[in-house]
Amino acid sequence: MLKVEHIGIAVQSLAESLPLFEKLLNTPCYKIEEVESEQVRTAFFATGVNKIELLESTSPEGVIARYLAKRGEGIHHIAFEVQDIESEMKRLAGEGFELLQEKPKRGADNKLVCFLHPKGTKNVLVELCQEVEVNK
Amino acid sequence: MLKVEHIGIAVQSLAESLPLFEKLLNTPCYKIEEVESEQVRTAFFATGVNKIELLESTSPEGVIARYLAKRGEGIHHIAFEVQDIESEMKRLAGEGFELLQEKPKRGADNKLVCFLHPKGTKNVLVELCQEVEVNK
Repeated sequence: MLKVEHIGIAVQSLAESLPLFEKLLNTPCYKIEEVESEQVRTAFFATGVNKIELLESTSPEGVIARYLAKRGEGIHHIAFEVQDIESEMKRLAGEGFELLQEKPKRGADNKLVCFLHPKGTKNVLVELCQEVEVNK
Repeated sequence: MLKVEHIGIAVQSLAESLPLFEKLLNTPCYKIEEVESEQVRTAFFATGVNKIELLESTSPEGVIARYLAKRGEGIHHIAFEVQDIESEMKRLAGEGFELLQEKPKRGADNKLVCFLHPKGTKNVLVELCQEVEVNK
């Protein structure tokens, strides 16, 4: 794990939470991106080398909508940057962690990502992410 | 906010969770520290410039014991490193955030800390922390 790439926070409304987090973090949101496959709209803030990602559902059946219904707003996941996501997935599977994807999938912010099942990590939803190289 | 200094994770038992997070993060715990005033025992792991802090209660009435009873194990707080905690506290109070301390207090890992009330931050418990300078 190279660093905490970002922390994902589930919110009901980006329109409401975006100005709040701009005040909290004292920095403007630098990107809003929709990830259709996940039914989610994301907003990113930079805090030094780390990012905060707000997550709003674009569908009542989306993963974030279901999370909000169950747990309410709050921290949703931690994403760690890794150098080689496939070898890290192999290492973690070998250690007994349950991967939620068999192969890395495309996430927001130009990343290949894979999640670990939170039942094996003390309820912490862990995302691995690797920057996609240009021209690949 | 200079960076994510650490992410705090509440666990029932350090004895059980410490080897799990060593495997997950692929790095040994580098410090265990008890913070008596908080009735908590902490274990730290480095992930690049960021840290993961596991939190175990040392008392059935401690803040972590109460959190575990209510929410179960999982992510407890995000700590942001700041350059000047007192001026950041002033800025955030001016923006309408509720501070849980009037003055910075001593936290684990040689830090001055202050928490923000999570009701004003979408249920995210935010800690500000500033490294205590040597010889101060």
